[in-house]
Amino acid sequence: MPNEVVLPSDAAAELSAPKYPLHPLLAQRRSLRAFSSGLVDSQTLGSLLEAARWAPSSMNEQPWSFVVATQQNEENFQCLLACLLEFNVRWARSAPVLVLSIARLTFASNGEINRHALHDVGQAMAHLTLQANASGLAVCQMAGFDIQRARETYSIPDDHEPVTMAAIGHPGDPATLSERLRQKQLTPQKRNRLEDFVFEGKWKQPAQDVVRTING
Amino acid sequence: MPNEVVLPSDAAAELSAPKYPLHPLLAQRRSLRAFSSGLVDSQTLGSLLEAARWAPSSMNEQPWSFVVATQQNEENFQCLLACLLEFNVRWARSAPVLVLSIARLTFASNGEINRHALHDVGQAMAHLTLQANASGLAVCQMAGFDIQRARETYSIPDDHEPVTMAAIGHPGDPATLSERLRQKQLTPQKRNRLEDFVFEGKWKQPAQDVVRTING
Repeated sequence: MPNEVVLPSDAAAELSAPKYPLHPLLAQRRSLRAFSSGLVDSQTLGSLLEAARWAPSSMNEQPWSFVVATQQNEENFQCLLACLLEFNVRWARSAPVLVLSIARLTFASNGEINRHALHDVGQAMAHLTLQANASGLAVCQMAGFDIQRARETYSIPDDHEPVTMAAIGHPGDPATLSERLRQKQLTPQKRNRLEDFVFEGKWKQPAQDVVRTING
Repeated sequence: MPNEVVLPSDAAAELSAPKYPLHPLLAQRRSLRAFSSGLVDSQTLGSLLEAARWAPSSMNEQPWSFVVATQQNEENFQCLLACLLEFNVRWARSAPVLVLSIARLTFASNGEINRHALHDVGQAMAHLTLQANASGLAVCQMAGFDIQRARETYSIPDDHEPVTMAAIGHPGDPATLSERLRQKQLTPQKRNRLEDFVFEGKWKQPAQDVVRTING
């Protein structure tokens, strides 16, 4: 296991800058919307889905499915692109790969509700995203798509739910983005402070050991 | 970014063994329930939570909170341990760290439902788990806990939901586990085949490029 540690590079400007070292794969991840014109080969795309495949899930249910579309197949690509809301279509049309994630909401074995279905699709998508970064690709996940249109386009069954879409490709020049998105991509990421969401003993009571180490 | 590639080591026995290379951090992850008696220092614990902090989320909402308890604080530890169902208490009591994840179900800005709340807590938990592995720690996530007890114990507000618990510690000897859990830990992981959950163009239609590359 690699032991390198890296602090998120663009967080230095933040009051809440991280004090704890992170694995570089986690430290360097961020959402990118600017893509080059390079295609993604199927070997690399396979690795991304393989990464999702090996994510953990409650009861090993693996409640995830993915619809993928690449620019190599124009018809499929346009079909999935059309599920995005217009403000995402504008930049995501440049991504060589689009992915739609889908959660099965019930356990296959007994039909009962799987309350961790979306949670575990999130884990699979996190793995997919990190593998994409490891393969040199940029990813931007999107909530902004037409769930009903996706359901109808792909005849997604009632006990399944379209969850997110993602645009994936080789990193490109932010100058290709609109001014608003360029600023967004170039601005340091912001996060809540650890003491605002890591508690011990009582709700909203910051975990002392963690906070003391930061501030000590 | 490290470029090493590793195939999941225990998957060789499977018909559906992976053909696509994975980043080692993703390839080597698996749930482990046997812990040594070593404690986890607060610097390392801080890195795990820092990893969760930098996970992506819809609208950068960061809907996650965590309650942590370590064996260094016996009272807090017993309190969180008592939220687990009995079959998990039996082995998780040996873990030096317990974590409870909580999702805020509404957007802080406008109170509307955040349909990606659990999804994004899943992403944060995936990052936490991978950072734990990178730090040499074993993790087992658990669905088996008493949600209502956790809610009451920590006065978790109505618009928040307890999601999962996790046991974290240094890897130990599987001989300390019950026969059933030992077998579970020593058995190769199983996953669905890519063609069963990666589609293109139509629901249940395997993505040709991905499948062709596997089988070609």
